Amino acid sequence: MDHIIGVDLGGTAIKVGAVPVDGGTVLGMRSLPTDAHIGAKFVVDRIVSMILDVKRDATREGGFGEDAIVGVGMGAPGPLDRKTGTVVETPNLGWRNFPLRDLIVKGTGLEAELDNDANAATLGEWWRGAGRGVDHLVGVTLGTGIGGGLMLDGELYHGASDVAAEIGHMTINSTGRKCGCGSYGCLEAYASGPAIASRAVEGLKAGADSMLLDLVEGDLRAITAEAVSDAIVAGDEYAGDVMRETARYLGTGLANLINVLNPEMIVVSGGVTRAGRHLFDPLRREVRKRAFRPAAEACRIVRTELGGMAGVIGAAAVFRVARLGPL
Amino acid sequence: MDHIIGVDLGGTAIKVGAVPVDGGTVLGMRSLPTDAHIGAKFVVDRIVSMILDVKRDATREGGFGEDAIVGVGMGAPGPLDRKTGTVVETPNLGWRNFPLRDLIVKGTGLEAELDNDANAATLGEWWRGAGRGVDHLVGVTLGTGIGGGLMLDGELYHGASDVAAEIGHMTINSTGRKCGCGSYGCLEAYASGPAIASRAVEGLKAGADSMLLDLVEGDLRAITAEAVSDAIVAGDEYAGDVMRETARYLGTGLANLINVLNPEMIVVSGGVTRAGRHLFDPLRREVRKRAFRPAAEACRIVRTELGGMAGVIGAAAVFRVARLGPL
Repeated sequence: MDHIIGVDLGGTAIKVGAVPVDGGTVLGMRSLPTDAHIGAKFVVDRIVSMILDVKRDATREGGFGEDAIVGVGMGAPGPLDRKTGTVVETPNLGWRNFPLRDLIVKGTGLEAELDNDANAATLGEWWRGAGRGVDHLVGVTLGTGIGGGLMLDGELYHGASDVAAEIGHMTINSTGRKCGCGSYGCLEAYASGPAIASRAVEGLKAGADSMLLDLVEGDLRAITAEAVSDAIVAGDEYAGDVMRETARYLGTGLANLINVLNPEMIVVSGGVTRAGRHLFDPLRREVRKRAFRPAAEACRIVRTELGGMAGVIGAAAVFRVARLGPL
Repeated sequence: MDHIIGVDLGGTAIKVGAVPVDGGTVLGMRSLPTDAHIGAKFVVDRIVSMILDVKRDATREGGFGEDAIVGVGMGAPGPLDRKTGTVVETPNLGWRNFPLRDLIVKGTGLEAELDNDANAATLGEWWRGAGRGVDHLVGVTLGTGIGGGLMLDGELYHGASDVAAEIGHMTINSTGRKCGCGSYGCLEAYASGPAIASRAVEGLKAGADSMLLDLVEGDLRAITAEAVSDAIVAGDEYAGDVMRETARYLGTGLANLINVLNPEMIVVSGGVTRAGRHLFDPLRREVRKRAFRPAAEACRIVRTELGGMAGVIGAAAVFRVARLGPL
């Protein structure tokens, strides 16, 4: 069976694995820190050596020859230019107009394709995860930022200049919280990982009682959205309040997407989805309050099935769609 | 030349004309009040007789036979089911599950197709108006409500259940003005015609000085968004303030659409666009402040070219696309 090597390049980690062209079991999977602060050359060298390691291990595990590795698909933080394979700008990695695809081709001797990381994850979830068989799918990734991907009429939608689905900077409160982008009231300023953490810290500073303080041994800087999610599952009331508030903001954003796109499904991923029903129940309630009823009724809001593997599987699918035709 | 009869059914008026299949000069154009309060049967009878009148006049004006009229395309307020040709629900007309298409087919003996009015107007603007040659186009109609239509990758996008592009109920201020839909802070609660008028009236009641008071002879109930637009063009400062505020709200909504869809163009139509640069200059400024930069740079925001004819031309195009293939 032919395999495609999928590369999920994030601000924190690089994940690489060999994905069968029919989407079966991923082979040779590995993950390493990105360590972007060391420099772009270091990151590219690390990706290249991870690809070569995966190629070697996968062919051994799978019992096939090296020529069964037909190419590399990559997901990287955008905006980027798919045609030239260039990363236009990534605040997280500090790159500008960086010819990532061609450097990977040169380093590995394999053909490669590049797309936005959130697009790749959404394509992966549609191919092998929660979104199988869904024609109109929105993927939402809650992390350091809030990323989005759109599968419309069964294809990834890229827009006029490859930057569609920048849903994190949708305004939900035009005079609200300052966002890192310079605007006010962006969804990301309320519901990204750091925003959840900082809203939680604000309340703790104001005297709220919570096991979160014990979890981080009093060090408020150590509070993360994942810690909030874990505290909820352990029964912490204050963390529950923070999550319900998060769900209302996020529900406002998803209702906007439902009103504009009328999708069949929204798949939500990211560490904060560990909170499970503590996130999804109030989130679905808020959506029902805000979205146009026939559009809300048509849309299921679900948790990722692929979790941290969506990016790798989707990156491989990016190569598959570009070179071998529709999935 | 074959012609299609386009019907633009609105809450206030019904417009009908015969559109050549190549999009040339519209023949037999006429417009009558909808008078929906008289009842659904009255409205259907009126549409049927208008279609038959247009058919007669167009064939005479154009010098062709009746068999050159190949069908009827209709745009109607949604939500509706295109497959069955049924209007699911229209608060403006008071209809529920109303089999509009089949009644028109029965009354006229012509084949017919039905789509949402804002979708039809957007398709019209793309076919023969400001959006010619544009792959990714958003149409925005500012009227009693705020309607939207999406042309994505050169085709009308309908979503999972034909209710995509309900952009009027996008939240821009989650704790803001109460909207008629029951939610809070919808774009429509700030920038629809009645919302503009009521914001203008609020200021006048609070003592603002404006020629608007003279225009309506002191009757505040007579103030409309069009009156505000006319007062601005005549140099009224207060009306200018109201319009700049409108532009900021609308710019927030358009920035959201730009972030999600990365369109090449947004075409804005409706009576309030009479304000020209008094609307568009502050609107574009707000968009630049709020939208993701590469997406904002890729998108032109322009005024309708077809004006009140977009609905009729677009309705004919709905039939053309459904029965005769892509435009």
